[in-house]
Amino acid sequence: MPSYADVGVNLDNSNHAKRLIAAAVTSTHGPAVLAGMGAFGGAFDLGGAARQVTHPVLVASTDGVGTKTLIARATGRFDTVGQDLVNHCVNDILVQGARPLFFLDYIASARLDPLEVAAIVGGVAEACRAAGCALLGGETAEMPDVYHADAFDLAGTMIGVVDRDRLIDGRMIAPGDIVLGLRSSGLHTNGYSLARRICDPLGYDRRPPELGGDSLGEALLAVHCSYLPHLETLWNAGVIVKGMAHITGGGLLENLPRTLPPGSGATIRRGSWPVPPILQLLVAQAELDDAEAYRVFNMGIGMVLIVDAESVEQARALLPDSDTIGEIVAGEGVHLV
Amino acid sequence: MPSYADVGVNLDNSNHAKRLIAAAVTSTHGPAVLAGMGAFGGAFDLGGAARQVTHPVLVASTDGVGTKTLIARATGRFDTVGQDLVNHCVNDILVQGARPLFFLDYIASARLDPLEVAAIVGGVAEACRAAGCALLGGETAEMPDVYHADAFDLAGTMIGVVDRDRLIDGRMIAPGDIVLGLRSSGLHTNGYSLARRICDPLGYDRRPPELGGDSLGEALLAVHCSYLPHLETLWNAGVIVKGMAHITGGGLLENLPRTLPPGSGATIRRGSWPVPPILQLLVAQAELDDAEAYRVFNMGIGMVLIVDAESVEQARALLPDSDTIGEIVAGEGVHLV
Repeated sequence: MPSYADVGVNLDNSNHAKRLIAAAVTSTHGPAVLAGMGAFGGAFDLGGAARQVTHPVLVASTDGVGTKTLIARATGRFDTVGQDLVNHCVNDILVQGARPLFFLDYIASARLDPLEVAAIVGGVAEACRAAGCALLGGETAEMPDVYHADAFDLAGTMIGVVDRDRLIDGRMIAPGDIVLGLRSSGLHTNGYSLARRICDPLGYDRRPPELGGDSLGEALLAVHCSYLPHLETLWNAGVIVKGMAHITGGGLLENLPRTLPPGSGATIRRGSWPVPPILQLLVAQAELDDAEAYRVFNMGIGMVLIVDAESVEQARALLPDSDTIGEIVAGEGVHLV
Repeated sequence: MPSYADVGVNLDNSNHAKRLIAAAVTSTHGPAVLAGMGAFGGAFDLGGAARQVTHPVLVASTDGVGTKTLIARATGRFDTVGQDLVNHCVNDILVQGARPLFFLDYIASARLDPLEVAAIVGGVAEACRAAGCALLGGETAEMPDVYHADAFDLAGTMIGVVDRDRLIDGRMIAPGDIVLGLRSSGLHTNGYSLARRICDPLGYDRRPPELGGDSLGEALLAVHCSYLPHLETLWNAGVIVKGMAHITGGGLLENLPRTLPPGSGATIRRGSWPVPPILQLLVAQAELDDAEAYRVFNMGIGMVLIVDAESVEQARALLPDSDTIGEIVAGEGVHLV
């Protein structure tokens, strides 16, 4: 973990933050971590994880949290974006059937405040522990000529493993299969440019009655859900998931087709799941039509699962926050009805 | 590779750039890549690579190229920073004995110019091919409220593999061992804040006579060397490398100690290797003393190898651009003499 050493070098008057960061990072380390902080590269012993799989396929995803960081700055709360980052990446590899092994993060800013970095890394570590993965490395950079004052960027990379026979690629999806939606907590990590345009003038402390007591800032910082527990539950029960789509930028309309084989489309029934109040508020304020709203926002569905009709009842019984939102049809694309 | 799809979405009037990016990415893909562009996560079949190792340990590193991106912008040349990024990460995992498997990149900016992104990705892919690794994924982000106009950031993550028995951790290093230096091409990816402060007023087109025909911009963009070929040569010849240090931020003085076991220090003899003209020029212009120069810059040594005295002659015969730069001594720290 070369970079956290660098944080120490740059910010050596903040030993408290250094200790917080070291404690957060090592809290994610099990016996598989052979080299962590201070090493040039983090080393992860695949022996343990690989023994559980016959033919290991590594699945990896790099992602960022976009301008959700600016909401963190505006509200002074930095731990939740760390969780967002990890959970986003967990979901990206989950879609192919992979379970998380380890994660690396990248934090860059005009100036790094050591306690803010410690809060971000604390959130990253918390989500890593929840996903059972190690925070194996990371990098921090201070670049005032690249970043606006007070702005920061947060990206990360998740590496997971799946047995080749269990890699999910959507190939078996066929007309008649059912589209299950798993509910999101809010915007997750997409749509923040529009959300900020609407909420900046209102102020993030404002508590609109429709948010049930939450401020705009709190509702906008709601943590991106990890759907790993949902899939663990289904897999443990033997439910076969034929395809999945993580609903990020582009929404249901652009992400669901990514898991569908040629000749298969999907019909999605609006109103078959609850739309979170913050999304209703933003759509109303921006006067978005459905075509726009369903591209900019996840509209309440963070992950889509495709199962065959025989498995629906069991899956829904196992997952209380799931809804039957549509079905697979012959054709192409996603049709909102 | 979800993000390159996103580039397409954001920049769909530049199909030419999209095609260049797709061609660059797929040029790095061998049969181990099961899912690449368009997938939520990239999938890499470890079966082939794992068969060559008894007990696989994954080694991973995330790094960035810092403000070398601003030199790329100032000179209008974008492919070399892509190579810098990959080679930096190759060296980070090489230090622990790992060979590259796959890479993921992250490109963020106020506004992404599709042809500039294509040039960056082209450089990333070129260095990936040279290192025999797949460009498995990546992410791009446009955030004008985070990045200064025209500025961009470039980070990436390399994942490699080493057999647990061949993991290099410096444990066997002992007084009397020899410190070999592998020459750098210039600044590599460190010291650019100071270099820009010196060169911005001079202009990057200027060709100082001591650079032998190169402009300041050309010398500053010299590509970060990958030392994978050097280590492959040594390993193939059966030379045992007891420890390695990648000389990045903090220079020889701060990076070499990271590979030394407790009770071992190193004596480094200045003048035992050539210092590249661009580094001589910058040190003279900034009037740095040695303590500063050897922390800010690599001073001509990009990688340090520790070998026992019996192996030195063979190693140096195999590596024409290596120099004997010092030895391991009882004690702590690195002493310049």
